[in-house]
Amino acid sequence: MTSNSILFENVDWIVTQNPRREILRNKSVYIEDGKIVEIGDSKLDADHIINGRGKVLLPGLINSHTHSSMTLFRGYADDMELNHWLEDKIWPLESKLKPHDCYLGSLLACLEMIRFGITCFNDMYIYVDDIAKAVKEIGLRCFLGEVIFDWNIGKQLPYSDKFTKKWLNDDLITPLVNMHAPYSCSDETLLKLKETADKYNILMHMHVSETEKEVRDFQKTRGKTPVEHLDRLGILNDKLIAVHCNWLTNKDVDIFSRRNCSIVHCPVSNMKLANGRMPPLKRIFEKNIRVGLGTDGCASNNNLDMFEEMKVCSLINKFQERDPTFISAQKALDLVTIEPAKIFEIDNKIGSVEKGKIADLILVDFRKSHLHPVHGKNTIISNLVYSCQGSDVDTTIINGKVLMKDREILGIDEEKIFKEVQRAVEKIISN
Amino acid sequence: MTSNSILFENVDWIVTQNPRREILRNKSVYIEDGKIVEIGDSKLDADHIINGRGKVLLPGLINSHTHSSMTLFRGYADDMELNHWLEDKIWPLESKLKPHDCYLGSLLACLEMIRFGITCFNDMYIYVDDIAKAVKEIGLRCFLGEVIFDWNIGKQLPYSDKFTKKWLNDDLITPLVNMHAPYSCSDETLLKLKETADKYNILMHMHVSETEKEVRDFQKTRGKTPVEHLDRLGILNDKLIAVHCNWLTNKDVDIFSRRNCSIVHCPVSNMKLANGRMPPLKRIFEKNIRVGLGTDGCASNNNLDMFEEMKVCSLINKFQERDPTFISAQKALDLVTIEPAKIFEIDNKIGSVEKGKIADLILVDFRKSHLHPVHGKNTIISNLVYSCQGSDVDTTIINGKVLMKDREILGIDEEKIFKEVQRAVEKIISN
Repeated sequence: MTSNSILFENVDWIVTQNPRREILRNKSVYIEDGKIVEIGDSKLDADHIINGRGKVLLPGLINSHTHSSMTLFRGYADDMELNHWLEDKIWPLESKLKPHDCYLGSLLACLEMIRFGITCFNDMYIYVDDIAKAVKEIGLRCFLGEVIFDWNIGKQLPYSDKFTKKWLNDDLITPLVNMHAPYSCSDETLLKLKETADKYNILMHMHVSETEKEVRDFQKTRGKTPVEHLDRLGILNDKLIAVHCNWLTNKDVDIFSRRNCSIVHCPVSNMKLANGRMPPLKRIFEKNIRVGLGTDGCASNNNLDMFEEMKVCSLINKFQERDPTFISAQKALDLVTIEPAKIFEIDNKIGSVEKGKIADLILVDFRKSHLHPVHGKNTIISNLVYSCQGSDVDTTIINGKVLMKDREILGIDEEKIFKEVQRAVEKIISN
Repeated sequence: MTSNSILFENVDWIVTQNPRREILRNKSVYIEDGKIVEIGDSKLDADHIINGRGKVLLPGLINSHTHSSMTLFRGYADDMELNHWLEDKIWPLESKLKPHDCYLGSLLACLEMIRFGITCFNDMYIYVDDIAKAVKEIGLRCFLGEVIFDWNIGKQLPYSDKFTKKWLNDDLITPLVNMHAPYSCSDETLLKLKETADKYNILMHMHVSETEKEVRDFQKTRGKTPVEHLDRLGILNDKLIAVHCNWLTNKDVDIFSRRNCSIVHCPVSNMKLANGRMPPLKRIFEKNIRVGLGTDGCASNNNLDMFEEMKVCSLINKFQERDPTFISAQKALDLVTIEPAKIFEIDNKIGSVEKGKIADLILVDFRKSHLHPVHGKNTIISNLVYSCQGSDVDTTIINGKVLMKDREILGIDEEKIFKEVQRAVEKIISN
């Protein structure tokens, strides 16, 4: 027994997500100093012993795209046209945000994510110093960078640079370059940001081809799609994470494949904003492009539940393709575990339950009426994707640290945070 | 204080769903002998006092179409072509079902529905005597009838007739006529079933125009859509509840409107089976047709969560119509409360929180990270539809009886039921 060990014992099912997608029955997992040391029949003693009877152990889920602080605007404005929603509701509020507001919004998001089994997320917003503070306080794994547009690059590029240097070697927070979108960043801005990414050898993260209008406008004014334009500029490489991508052309997909870019798909948000099309995933998978799923921000979702995101991803893509075999339960689970781990270049560290990997793990409680019966291994995956909801997660471990056990978030006064968030939001809106 | 009274006190928000869709703040609801007697500031003493602080009270949700016993097949076969799924997986198992299996499956479904805040459901399956037994044991409100096809009408019509007579005046179970579908029931069968419905003055419930193939086949062989055919036969009237209706033509919608029929929409199931289109709801609403939502059976959903169904209904119809304003949160909530109460001709009894109505009520616990902050009344509806999940329901009352309080189902040994279900299912599959 070391000073920092955890034993999951008698786990009903372990969904490993290893290369053979093995599912183990009645096994234990032993963790030491944050890493998985043994999977099998360990009876070793440990500091924390967690009973897995009736439960399913799986890798923590990865939310590949969100704007965590936007929990502040959850339910504030729904069922509106995109432009009206942004221009009359969201942007006016965002313009009033102070750093501490972003801290509070992100704190609330982190609580929700832990509760719903998300152990790692990719965040794009403003005041990232304050977001990083929240993320470190709670203890999630996070990819984070200040979002840059043409209008803020002068001020925010140095801020971003300082942020990157500060977090470059952190064990939980990894800085990346957040360029907002091809339509909101000039060629000059994009090239400058690419230069930064190259300099630090970090990832780039950008909204691309979300709406039809965006693509049509590009084609009209430049004679190219946004992706063709980015390619011509020399922005595209294996560090580029393109989010949404609903309106990619076949040629765009081929370019992304050739340049080894990654794609993040946000089905709930894109349906809610009625963007009219999902990314052409069949072709994207054929071309071996890495894909992850994201909730997007809470203002357009309106939660951070990756179980819901998995299910809706499977449903909407089956529907769009008119193919009930498309995005199987196993595939959906891959898109929130091992696949995005590849996008973030940490598949050697997380994304599966394997010896030597970091313990970013969750337990899902299957002792519930909506998760019965069980017909064997395949039902476990089906139930996780098609029957579960975020609230079924009862234990969350990140970096070998128990953050939630039996649905209790350890060492955090949630009520106090809810009250502070409520006060902050009322002040923003009344101002 | 009477011998059977309940007081919900200090309820944060009451979503009345009354004709003015009022939302009340910090009020109480007093219930006596199963009925709502007072909404306001009552300080009356009661047998049960339920604290509503931090919670939202709303009418119990109505699941307008399911096959409750199919919980048995949850996760047994997913991601398959419809015919392959039915012919190779579902039908072979169904052929082995015994009455007690259907009892157990329905028992499990009732537990799940109580947990997720469903107080009333419309069920279509076999061995309804045994399903009724389960429903009565748990205490849900249910519309129920033996499903009839050409191949079983000889034996099942007398069975169904006896069932109808038995339950005609029950306070929870209401018999209806379940005709399977226009493609599986001959004209003679349909007319005989219509006669039964007329005789007892009860509702009729049927799958209609679920798949494109069904409609094309009808048009090819009879020169008419299924709806045109049903109309010509004289089956359509205000008692007819048509489920799915994905492939209705404009003319079909006009016929349904003229005949005053009702429609049930099952978005999750239809997306999962990749039926390719949702019902033309814009036209359906324009024509003032009553609409409800249903989960369909657990084999094609794979849960009974009407919160999920509301959200997905809003998402998929926004997506299909490319209109983010379509199916607002308020509209989605209407489709699982007061609107289906009209379909089932009990809107004078349930579907809203109003004085004189029966107490079919649920409390949703908003003291959770994914349900914060609250920007005022409208957020309550948005959060219920876009952020909640079934597990957020913490109290369920049906017919004035407390079935679940603080997430504990009273007087029922859930574990025992799970085990019996598991044993039954293993026997069915291994036989």
